[in-house]
Order: sequence, then structure tokens, then C-alpha cells
Amino acid sequence: MIEMTVGQYNLVYNAFSFCFATMAAATLFFWFGRSQVAPRYQTALTITGLVTFIAAYHYLRIAESWGAAYDVADGTVTATGLAFNDAYRYVDWLLTVPLLLVELILVMGLSRQETISRSVRLGGLAALMIALGYPGEIATSDSGRWFWGIASMIPFLWIVYELFVGLSKAIADQPEEARGLVDAARWVTVLAWAFYPVVYFAGAIGLDGATANTVIQVGYTVADIVAKAGFGVLIFLIALRKSEAIRDGASAKTVVAQ
Amino acid sequence: MIEMTVGQYNLVYNAFSFCFATMAAATLFFWFGRSQVAPRYQTALTITGLVTFIAAYHYLRIAESWGAAYDVADGTVTATGLAFNDAYRYVDWLLTVPLLLVELILVMGLSRQETISRSVRLGGLAALMIALGYPGEIATSDSGRWFWGIASMIPFLWIVYELFVGLSKAIADQPEEARGLVDAARWVTVLAWAFYPVVYFAGAIGLDGATANTVIQVGYTVADIVAKAGFGVLIFLIALRKSEAIRDGASAKTVVAQ
Repeated sequence: MIEMTVGQYNLVYNAFSFCFATMAAATLFFWFGRSQVAPRYQTALTITGLVTFIAAYHYLRIAESWGAAYDVADGTVTATGLAFNDAYRYVDWLLTVPLLLVELILVMGLSRQETISRSVRLGGLAALMIALGYPGEIATSDSGRWFWGIASMIPFLWIVYELFVGLSKAIADQPEEARGLVDAARWVTVLAWAFYPVVYFAGAIGLDGATANTVIQVGYTVADIVAKAGFGVLIFLIALRKSEAIRDGASAKTVVAQ
Repeated sequence: MIEMTVGQYNLVYNAFSFCFATMAAATLFFWFGRSQVAPRYQTALTITGLVTFIAAYHYLRIAESWGAAYDVADGTVTATGLAFNDAYRYVDWLLTVPLLLVELILVMGLSRQETISRSVRLGGLAALMIALGYPGEIATSDSGRWFWGIASMIPFLWIVYELFVGLSKAIADQPEEARGLVDAARWVTVLAWAFYPVVYFAGAIGLDGATANTVIQVGYTVADIVAKAGFGVLIFLIALRKSEAIRDGASAKTVVAQ
């Protein structure tokens, strides 16, 4: 990667810094939002904020590690010999990807038993998906990357199945004012997540070098912002609409009682 | 440990960073949860969050110390001469292990007198267990490690006895919706804690070298996550279920009164 230009170095560094600021701001937004929703949706917002909190920490580390890996002076970029620690991403995903599915389940307001069983199943599949992807990411051969990448796709496809088939009844049962948003949250999950394997397999077909690396780093960063902060805004809106419906329902009952 | 590979170095470093992020996120989760439980269980959640807060601080230090102890450049790991400060773990445990038992006692909602006497006894035994283990950890001879390790097992076994015999009546008296969770919390304590002596005595039978050290560091980290953050989630759920039972009981009484 000795041929990286200063423009490429800066674009990646600034994307990391942008992402830290977005995640930190999103965290505070979600936690302030807790007091605006009904108690039953507060845990969903706590976790939504935890996801962006954990991501903010990792993007701070990633930006630091990027800065330490390269020296920029007199218009040229030279590697310092310190490795850029890309594994922060996997550490982050191992924690945040299961939590993203848990926040979706929590905001749907299912029965306690269904909440627990679906959270455990989806969270477990998500953790498995990340854990299987990691050996491929650090594999020295393209075949290793293919093997683990395909292994990791199995829990991914199972999650997609659970979201579109397993949850379809629960989504149809959502109150009308929240149904479209829950459906959108499901689509954001699948579409934003589909970007990760594209980047992953770009490495397996030998796309390498400074330009490819720049695309990969910026691409992962944009996908993380959509999947965590963007998705979180949908969760917040769902919690808010459903809380308003509860409040309106409660006042409607009061009116009837009078 | 000069033969440590970059993969081993990174695995340990990333485990420490992962643990910091988990503990920090868990801390905020528990403290946000305080507002969702009845006042009598809020102190339990305060302490649950303190345990993970203290652990987050120590893992940040441990990760820093690990980074300072080794240089990684151009695919090789070399010791810098600065010692890796493993004692952060003991400092952490001296504070957190007694608090872990106190949070379990607090969430059980015993009488004031029983809460105090059991907290003092279990907390004292836990502190004694850690204090006796430390001289063995820094002992230069295997016999020293055996001596202090066995000494430390005495308070450990006493704690296990207290949890399974001393607390059995108090657990049987828990409301039905929380009893299974309290029992699970007791088991998590014993099983997660049983891992520590295994690692400890691995040192006494001469297991050393880079691979053993990697297993030990990652093993302690996983055990800490289960025993502090995982255990804390159980404490939160117990507090939440019992608070809901109080609320439901209160509204049932209101209905009856009408």
C-alpha cells in the first residue's frame, strides 16, 4: 500500500473521524429520547444508544490506529511499520450486531417469552455470523477468505429468513402507525448488512492496493453509519409513535369512562 | 515469551479492548436500568454498574500495559522491557468480587439485618480469597503458588457453601417469577468463578510460554465478562421482574380496595 496518496489517506482518516462524531451524537440523541417514550420501550432506546456508544469507541480507536500506521510528510504517505488494527471492526460487530437485532425485537413489544426466544436466536446467529467471518478476514489465502466468508453467509441468510418469514406475523400485528417503520427497519438491516459481504468478497477476488483499500474503509464506515445510527433513528421513531398510541389510547379510555 | 506471534499478540489485545467496550456498555445499561426498577432494588443496580465500571477502568489499563510491553513491527513481536502489569486484575478483583456478592444479596430483598450480616460475611470472604491468591500469583516458586492457591480455595469453598446452603431458604422464599433467575445467578457465580483457579493452577503445573499465556489472558477476560456483565444482566432481570410483581400487586390491591 506504499502507493497510497495523501488524498486517499485523508479521505479515510476523515471518514473515521466523521463516523466517531456521528456515533457519539447519535448515542446522546437516543439516550435523551428515553424520557420521551413509554417505559416499555426505554430498554430498546438504552440498547440503541449502547450500539452507537460502542461504535463511537471503536471508531476513535480505528482513527488512532490509522494515524499511527502512516506518516504523512511533504506530500507523501509512508507506512510506519505499525499495523493498522482492522480487527477493531470485528470486535465492534461481535458486540453491536446482536444488539441491533435485540433492539428491533424489543421495540416490537412482543410477549416476554417471544422477546427472549427471538432475541436469543437472532443474537446468537448474529454473533456466529461475525465469529465465522473473522478467520477469513485474517486468512492469508483467497481460498481461506472464501471458505469462512461462505460459512458466515449461512447464519446471515438464516437471519434474513427470520426477519422476513419468522417475524412477518409479528410485524402484521404492529399498530398501524408503526408498521411501516418496523418494515423499513427490517429492510435497512438487510440492505445495509448486504454491503458487508460485498466488501468482504472484494478481498477474495484479489481487489487490493490503495484504491481498493480506500473504498473498503470508507464503504464499511458508511455502512456502519446507516446500520447503526440510521437504523437507530427508525427505532426511536417506532418507540415514539407507539408511545403516543398508548397515551392516546389511555386518554380515549378515560373519555369513554367519563 | 519471545516466541509470541503477531496473531497471539493481537488476539490478546483485541480481547482486552473488547472487554473494555463490553464493561463500559454494561455499566451504562445497568445505570439506565435504575429508573426502571422499584426504589428498593436501585442500590443493587448501582453496585452492578460499579462492578463493570471498575472492570472497564482496569481493562483500559491492562490493554495499555499490554500495548506498552510489546512492540509489533513488520510481522514480529518484541518485548520492550516494560513489564506487563498483571496485578491490575487483583486490584480489580479485590474491589469487584465482594461487590458482586453484595449485589446478589441486595437484589434478593432480604431483611435489613440479614442483608447486612450476609453482605459482610460474603464480602469479607471474597476479599480474603483474592488477598490470599495474590502472593501465589507473584510467587517465584511453584510451591509458593500451590500454598497460596490452596489457602485461597478455603474462603472460595466457604462462599460456595454459603451460596448453596446458607442462602437456600432465602432463594426458596423468592417470588416465583424471580426464583429461577436468582438460582441461575448463583450458578453463574460458582461456574464462572471456578474458571479462575483452573487458570491459576495452570501456572503452578508449569504451563508457560506464549500459547499458555494467550489462553490465560483470553480465558480470564471471558470469565470476567461472564461473571460481571453476564451476571449483571441476571441481576437487572431479577430486579425488573420483582419490581413488576410489586407494581402488579399494588394495582391488584387497588382494584380489590375499590
